[in-house]
Amino acid sequence: MNDHALPATLPETERTRHRRLREQGSLDRAELDAILGAGFVCHLGVLVDGQPMVVPTVYGSDGRTLYFHGSVASRSLVASPEATVCVTVTHVDGLVLARSVFEHGVNYRSAMIYGVPRAVTDPDEKLAGLRCLTEQAAPGQWDYARQPSRKEMAATVVLALSLAEASVKIRTGGPDDGEGPDAALGIWAGILPLTASWGAPEADPLLPTGIAPPPHISNRAHTRAG
Amino acid sequence: MNDHALPATLPETERTRHRRLREQGSLDRAELDAILGAGFVCHLGVLVDGQPMVVPTVYGSDGRTLYFHGSVASRSLVASPEATVCVTVTHVDGLVLARSVFEHGVNYRSAMIYGVPRAVTDPDEKLAGLRCLTEQAAPGQWDYARQPSRKEMAATVVLALSLAEASVKIRTGGPDDGEGPDAALGIWAGILPLTASWGAPEADPLLPTGIAPPPHISNRAHTRAG
Repeated sequence: MNDHALPATLPETERTRHRRLREQGSLDRAELDAILGAGFVCHLGVLVDGQPMVVPTVYGSDGRTLYFHGSVASRSLVASPEATVCVTVTHVDGLVLARSVFEHGVNYRSAMIYGVPRAVTDPDEKLAGLRCLTEQAAPGQWDYARQPSRKEMAATVVLALSLAEASVKIRTGGPDDGEGPDAALGIWAGILPLTASWGAPEADPLLPTGIAPPPHISNRAHTRAG
Repeated sequence: MNDHALPATLPETERTRHRRLREQGSLDRAELDAILGAGFVCHLGVLVDGQPMVVPTVYGSDGRTLYFHGSVASRSLVASPEATVCVTVTHVDGLVLARSVFEHGVNYRSAMIYGVPRAVTDPDEKLAGLRCLTEQAAPGQWDYARQPSRKEMAATVVLALSLAEASVKIRTGGPDDGEGPDAALGIWAGILPLTASWGAPEADPLLPTGIAPPPHISNRAHTRAG
């Protein structure tokens, strides 16, 4: 972590250059931040024994660094300390239903981040990384729940990945065949939206009676997630 | 495609053996089918220039083969025709809110499939693969929309991946610290469920008036997705 702001425009590299569907690519860092801010589960791509492995895992972003837990990534990190990973965060917003099967598609927002993660060893950054991870999934929970003990901290591997190199793709809007020859077919076309939302909190059956969920949890019920 | 049924128990290989959190692993093929059947977007991990790339893409599963489109995967396939890919499908079902930050987690269902994809060249299988892809996302749409022309078929790359080698992980239920020392802290604990659901269909503004969405689309509104 340092105090230099990352540039507002994402650098275009060989990996992040949009080869296909250029119109859907974005190099706007604000779009990246919005996509990362709307989720808490990423798909982490690592090399294990020379082959790709894609693992869903929770993350936290502070705008310049993505934090995530160890496990597969740390196993890979130990085996190949300078290995690049790819972290992808995707929100699916709906189906694009066109007149022709060929023009069908998906509305989505997706971010891909490339880099070589580092294991966080500094105790202050490790605690900040865990806080970032926790608050990304459950804002307000870090100060409400019991924070990690020294022993728990030692048992946790936190990895940090710079947000310097990233790629954003977004598709919105309806199908593209509304003005071509298929428009005369009389086939319905449009969007079927898909939304993720939080439900009402369900208490642990082992919880004693009389302990209500705190507002930072109960207020999320029936709100949009992602 | 052949008529041999895949075994009901998934084979345990070096890649699919559950190293951590063994209790969450499953080798039940019915669980795999259920997870694949509940979604239509996967995260495809491929090697590009020796580095992992994780791309969200639509898929279809017929229970023995996973079909997906080309683009990055086909670029990778051309570059490394015998390269293994990893396809991961994840449904996030909620947050597990524990008494301690350390015990926080996520309820989820996830499948990982490993294998070497092949480009589908047989015209019948290619059509069947596209149908599978389309019906996975929008059941009923293949017979409703205009099916691909010869030219559109030629412009489409369909890849097939055997479902022979796969790994399933599922976490359900509440937090695990309901009986330890933290249970006395008076901290609320439980689950905050997360659900994806379809909204009401939104017509393409270019659609002439008088064309209603067909029942296979409109009936999905306000139903659960995933």
